[in-house]
Amino acid sequence: MGLNVYLSGEIHTDWREQIIEGAQGLDVTFTGPVTDHGASDDCGVTILGAESDKYWHDHKGAMVNAIRTRKGIADADVVVVRFGEKYKQWNAAFDAGYAAALGKSLVILQQPEHDHALKEVDAAALAMARTPEQVVQILRYVLTGALPG
Amino acid sequence: MGLNVYLSGEIHTDWREQIIEGAQGLDVTFTGPVTDHGASDDCGVTILGAESDKYWHDHKGAMVNAIRTRKGIADADVVVVRFGEKYKQWNAAFDAGYAAALGKSLVILQQPEHDHALKEVDAAALAMARTPEQVVQILRYVLTGALPG
Amino acid sequence: MGLNVYLSGEIHTDWREQIIEGAQGLDVTFTGPVTDHGASDDCGVTILGAESDKYWHDHKGAMVNAIRTRKGIADADVVVVRFGEKYKQWNAAFDAGYAAALGKSLVILQQPEHDHALKEVDAAALAMARTPEQVVQILRYVLTGALPG
Amino acid sequence: MGLNVYLSGEIHTDWREQIIEGAQGLDVTFTGPVTDHGASDDCGVTILGAESDKYWHDHKGAMVNAIRTRKGIADADVVVVRFGEKYKQWNAAFDAGYAAALGKSLVILQQPEHDHALKEVDAAALAMARTPEQVVQILRYVLTGALPG
Amino acid sequence: MGLNVYLSGEIHTDWREQIIEGAQGLDVTFTGPVTDHGASDDCGVTILGAESDKYWHDHKGAMVNAIRTRKGIADADVVVVRFGEKYKQWNAAFDAGYAAALGKSLVILQQPEHDHALKEVDAAALAMARTPEQVVQILRYVLTGALPG
Amino acid sequence: MGLNVYLSGEIHTDWREQIIEGAQGLDVTFTGPVTDHGASDDCGVTILGAESDKYWHDHKGAMVNAIRTRKGIADADVVVVRFGEKYKQWNAAFDAGYAAALGKSLVILQQPEHDHALKEVDAAALAMARTPEQVVQILRYVLTGALPG
Amino acid sequence: MGLNVYLSGEIHTDWREQIIEGAQGLDVTFTGPVTDHGASDDCGVTILGAESDKYWHDHKGAMVNAIRTRKGIADADVVVVRFGEKYKQWNAAFDAGYAAALGKSLVILQQPEHDHALKEVDAAALAMARTPEQVVQILRYVLTGALPG
Amino acid sequence: MGLNVYLSGEIHTDWREQIIEGAQGLDVTFTGPVTDHGASDDCGVTILGAESDKYWHDHKGAMVNAIRTRKGIADADVVVVRFGEKYKQWNAAFDAGYAAALGKSLVILQQPEHDHALKEVDAAALAMARTPEQVVQILRYVLTGALPG
Repeated sequence: MGLNVYLSGEIHTDWREQIIEGAQGLDVTFTGPVTDHGASDDCGVTILGAESDKYWHDHKGAMVNAIRTRKGIADADVVVVRFGEKYKQWNAAFDAGYAAALGKSLVILQQPEHDHALKEVDAAALAMARTPEQVVQILRYVLTGALPG
Repeated sequence: MGLNVYLSGEIHTDWREQIIEGAQGLDVTFTGPVTDHGASDDCGVTILGAESDKYWHDHKGAMVNAIRTRKGIADADVVVVRFGEKYKQWNAAFDAGYAAALGKSLVILQQPEHDHALKEVDAAALAMARTPEQVVQILRYVLTGALPG
Repeated sequence: MGLNVYLSGEIHTDWREQIIEGAQGLDVTFTGPVTDHGASDDCGVTILGAESDKYWHDHKGAMVNAIRTRKGIADADVVVVRFGEKYKQWNAAFDAGYAAALGKSLVILQQPEHDHALKEVDAAALAMARTPEQVVQILRYVLTGALPG
Repeated sequence: MGLNVYLSGEIHTDWREQIIEGAQGLDVTFTGPVTDHGASDDCGVTILGAESDKYWHDHKGAMVNAIRTRKGIADADVVVVRFGEKYKQWNAAFDAGYAAALGKSLVILQQPEHDHALKEVDAAALAMARTPEQVVQILRYVLTGALPG
Repeated sequence: MGLNVYLSGEIHTDWREQIIEGAQGLDVTFTGPVTDHGASDDCGVTILGAESDKYWHDHKGAMVNAIRTRKGIADADVVVVRFGEKYKQWNAAFDAGYAAALGKSLVILQQPEHDHALKEVDAAALAMARTPEQVVQILRYVLTGALPG
Repeated sequence: MGLNVYLSGEIHTDWREQIIEGAQGLDVTFTGPVTDHGASDDCGVTILGAESDKYWHDHKGAMVNAIRTRKGIADADVVVVRFGEKYKQWNAAFDAGYAAALGKSLVILQQPEHDHALKEVDAAALAMARTPEQVVQILRYVLTGALPG
Repeated sequence: MGLNVYLSGEIHTDWREQIIEGAQGLDVTFTGPVTDHGASDDCGVTILGAESDKYWHDHKGAMVNAIRTRKGIADADVVVVRFGEKYKQWNAAFDAGYAAALGKSLVILQQPEHDHALKEVDAAALAMARTPEQVVQILRYVLTGALPG
Repeated sequence: MGLNVYLSGEIHTDWREQIIEGAQGLDVTFTGPVTDHGASDDCGVTILGAESDKYWHDHKGAMVNAIRTRKGIADADVVVVRFGEKYKQWNAAFDAGYAAALGKSLVILQQPEHDHALKEVDAAALAMARTPEQVVQILRYVLTGALPG
């Protein structure tokens, strides 16, 4: 058994790298969004032409990014959604809802101060983790039955 | 043709009432979450027994609320998601993602200062409105073909 | 047994009225797009605000119309698509493809000069009719077993 | 992440070749219809026997072609639909509708003079491109995050 | 709880009438194909125009009949398929397979001499009955819990 | 909003009656299996003929009962599964799994001594209740927002 | 593009071998039922124990065979169903209906004397062929665009 | 044709090993739950932090195990569920129901004393076996057509 894991959410820390590195040797394929903030914001207009209205500027980019996001989530067995300390992060919560409706196994990576605000998201998840290392331990256990320690 | 419309999101203003009142005379059935904040937070422990840990207190409530939320969204033709001025509102974005994955017609009700943060959500929507009145006008047009003015 | 029938396509002649009138007395519920050309083109900007760019003007309207179109097709048992003599009518062919993928029973109403151009569309249909009266006869036969004459 | 891309629509210019060539080095598998116009028209009768009636001649061919088309679209992550300058091209719009109903990521390749006629098709798409090169740039960005320039 | 029951198969005896009469007073809605053999064979050409080739004559009729058949089976909770003593009855077996793939509850009504030939069909069924009366008893038990005698 | 609620599991106490009575006045439609143990065991052979082998005796009955069970669960919004004090009750756990895979909202009604044995079942549920009264309170809250006390 | 092709139906002639041999060099994977008549009839009792009642003898075998049949059809892109000259062949028609409901591309291989009896089956098919060679030509054309001659 | 087989249920004897060993040389991929009882019970708290309440201790573990279980069943063609001599084994019956609702081919491995209690589970299965060797023989027959002896 191998797992496809989509890593959604916060893009300002190296949590993805920690998980990918920690999972080395496991039969896991990772996917995720484009994490270059500038490219992600501007991909629509850079490729398809400038927009004078910021709303459509954003819209064109978000739709192009959706090609990648939807493919990644559709192919995933497990969707890990990380909520960081800053920003609205509505795209992360959107991905969580999208994945839940598709019946994906959800793992949420969050800090204690967000527990109350994330209770509806957590209610659809199979695990709520505090650290990337815990996510790795979940993946290892799911694939091999091995527990840490 | 009639429409089932689920009204998701912000619970601190009367936007739901404005839409429901404005839509009087149209063949629309509205549903939505329990909007009594206290009841929504405590329903789990009030019915099923207290929890010493706040996380499970919240979890039990969120799961009971999910019975209503999932039924409402599953039966809806149109899901309107309102993002207010305050709070994280991750449950609203979660509902939007959930509805999008089920192929529901999404209408997002948002303020201009949130446009950039909501671009991924809007990319899955069929309309982005600024006021409850606009939502009513959409419903009226969809059902009757009549435009305002 | 009753039937929900969606009438898609050409909006410049009275074919919908002919079918609806001919089917009086049968247990059929008809739906269809907004057929007021001006309203259909401008609904997006009239309700949600003007756009300086014609592309987004059209886009906003097409998305609002999609709320009605998708609901109508999703609820339909039979989708009748009429190709008229003029215009590109790509929305009609789009609706036919959309309905086919959902497994709806397709009836195409077309003129002989379009037979070759519509062969892929017809290949997904259960009937190709030349006149609205034939569509009525199909509906009557399907519901009651009665044939004309 | 790799992508299956179905190239639907116009068969009289070399836009497919441009995209396939431009995408060399990317993890993309391309499929599409049989683009030999004569073979596509006559495949049914050539294999399964002549028809005296042109309608059934076309019908037999269109159904054989549907074996390929449906397989290609069903397996695709992205469906690119190109509308050329001539002909009715209802099969292209049909494919777009079919792909949209299956939840595929749609990219439409069109000229400005068709913008109004294609507004319903574009409303279901994640990108509207003017050139094959833009389609390649989208695929490259989706797969690698790299933008042109 | 009410049941939609589709009565498929043999059209030369009054087994449908026996079941419908026997089920009077139960909350059952019955549907079925057009059972007028001549109308069923000729509906296509009578409505949509004559065909010189018998194969297409039959084809047009079978496709029109499919509008009714597919609707009836799609809406059914229970599909009863009766195999009579004569004819090939491939349409009956086709309906059984179609219903099985949709997860409908299948009841097969057959004579002992067909048991071996119907073993694959029976393997997908929840009941194999010998008489219309048994089918009525099944429906009564399923709806009310009452057994005969 | 109304709810269809399927009451699965233990048939030796009056928990169904307690819930149905407690829910009077709420917009709930209840369904459930045939709870007459003897009828449930013997329905197959009573209607369709005796079997000399006890295994097929049971099998015929279980398949007839499945017509009712599958319809009830398929139509349900909420499936309540009660585990009693005695017997294997594998049919109850089977129903829970069946309902979970269909995405139904599961409520499990169980005693503390079964908590460990039911942990996998509970992990798929939105509520674990100890008393029929709690189930009624959940239904009332979900439908009306009213909490007890 | 490769194709999975399931070869259903008649087991007394070498039509499967003709197709498989003819398709050598094409990217096709063939599956089909167990074609050893005796093994197919007796597999249930041989493995799982004798039955005194012929009906259950047949039933056990048919269910074991269904494991293979359902897997084969579920994985297939194209289902070819061959109706031979003899026997009831209800399993062939059942497979055709099953495949049709799953949206598989159906090809029927039949003799002219069966055309009328197979009209409902043919109405769900994309091709009606007379010879195994024609089936091979269809597969070659679908995969490569090459026509015979 | 290859098969993915999920081995669910009893974890105290070596039935899985017997099946896997017996199936050597066949094109079968086996998956199953973590069968280390202690790890399975404690995985949640070991990875994600201790719980003072035994219910949540169990709950966290059961949800982590569900990541593996759901993936295994979702990917399976055949789900074998073994009921042993002891314990409640509700998770086994839950898996059987879950697999049945997804349309998987079910094989139940059970002892005669459980036949009556398992009749509803067996009614959803394609085979009821008494020994691991019989399961191997089924797999061999399904894949190769070869019968024992």
